[in-house]
Amino acid sequence: MDLKQYVTIVEDWPKPGIRFKDITTIMDNGDAYKYATDQIVEYAKLKNVDMIVGPEARGFIIGCPVAYAMAKGFAPVRKEGKLPREVITAEYDLEYGTNVLAMHKDAIKPGQRVMIIDDLLATGGTVEATIKLIEQMGGVVAGCAFLIELTYLDGREKLKGYDICTLMQY
Amino acid sequence: MDLKQYVTIVEDWPKPGIRFKDITTIMDNGDAYKYATDQIVEYAKLKNVDMIVGPEARGFIIGCPVAYAMAKGFAPVRKEGKLPREVITAEYDLEYGTNVLAMHKDAIKPGQRVMIIDDLLATGGTVEATIKLIEQMGGVVAGCAFLIELTYLDGREKLKGYDICTLMQY
Repeated sequence: MDLKQYVTIVEDWPKPGIRFKDITTIMDNGDAYKYATDQIVEYAKLKNVDMIVGPEARGFIIGCPVAYAMAKGFAPVRKEGKLPREVITAEYDLEYGTNVLAMHKDAIKPGQRVMIIDDLLATGGTVEATIKLIEQMGGVVAGCAFLIELTYLDGREKLKGYDICTLMQY
Repeated sequence: MDLKQYVTIVEDWPKPGIRFKDITTIMDNGDAYKYATDQIVEYAKLKNVDMIVGPEARGFIIGCPVAYAMAKGFAPVRKEGKLPREVITAEYDLEYGTNVLAMHKDAIKPGQRVMIIDDLLATGGTVEATIKLIEQMGGVVAGCAFLIELTYLDGREKLKGYDICTLMQY
């Protein structure tokens, strides 16, 4: 299946000059959504993962079905103030300013093999911060999977040493 | 499986007097997460649904795996400004002020049987607004499913005439 034919390119969103890759047109097609998820399930099985981790909200869209398909747990990465129990946090740089990500401090057990799943690999900032959180809890990052990779932003460089799987490249 | 034993009650969160039901301790247990999701898959199969709809971000946590398990589409309900293409919106009342929900205006095709899935049925405000959006697009709300129902907030009253399934009641 050629997944790219289900991606909608939205010109000038969220700002002029950006060609946004809209994945909601993958998700609203049951077959395309299942196919995309199953590709990542295969990758996660090869990597022998114990837990899936995904950043809100789009990381839940593929990450949660992958966890379900493998009968593994899913731990959310959320913005500060959204998780009800004690958290650990990591910052990463945005174009202007910084963003803070949080996970429950008991979300990952030491030694667990963890896969990070998100919709998009862009500069890699979110993933890098998520890796910090997982490793701080003693987890092993067994791989990172994304629907889409924006190769010109060179996120792979930032994630050197980690295993990466992307289904579509632009 | 007694799912309640996997829910963590967090006292005084997000504010004093609230006993928050934290479902992340269901999600981080692969068996409990799969069991909870499968209960809702069974319900959705009985209702013959074509599409799953879930509000961000916690609605994605169960809704996305249910869509995957049935090879059906998933349409997200998001806060205004998050979806890249043309949307329709609906407002609902909060304790103080109002909130606006948005869906892509082509997310549901006329006649499609839709199931709304979220983590929590509280006052029912989010669901009521989501129903408006689905029906405005010509969709048929075939049912609404939730992990948890706070019965004392009487959300069912607001959703009278719609089919509702909840896995845990408090």
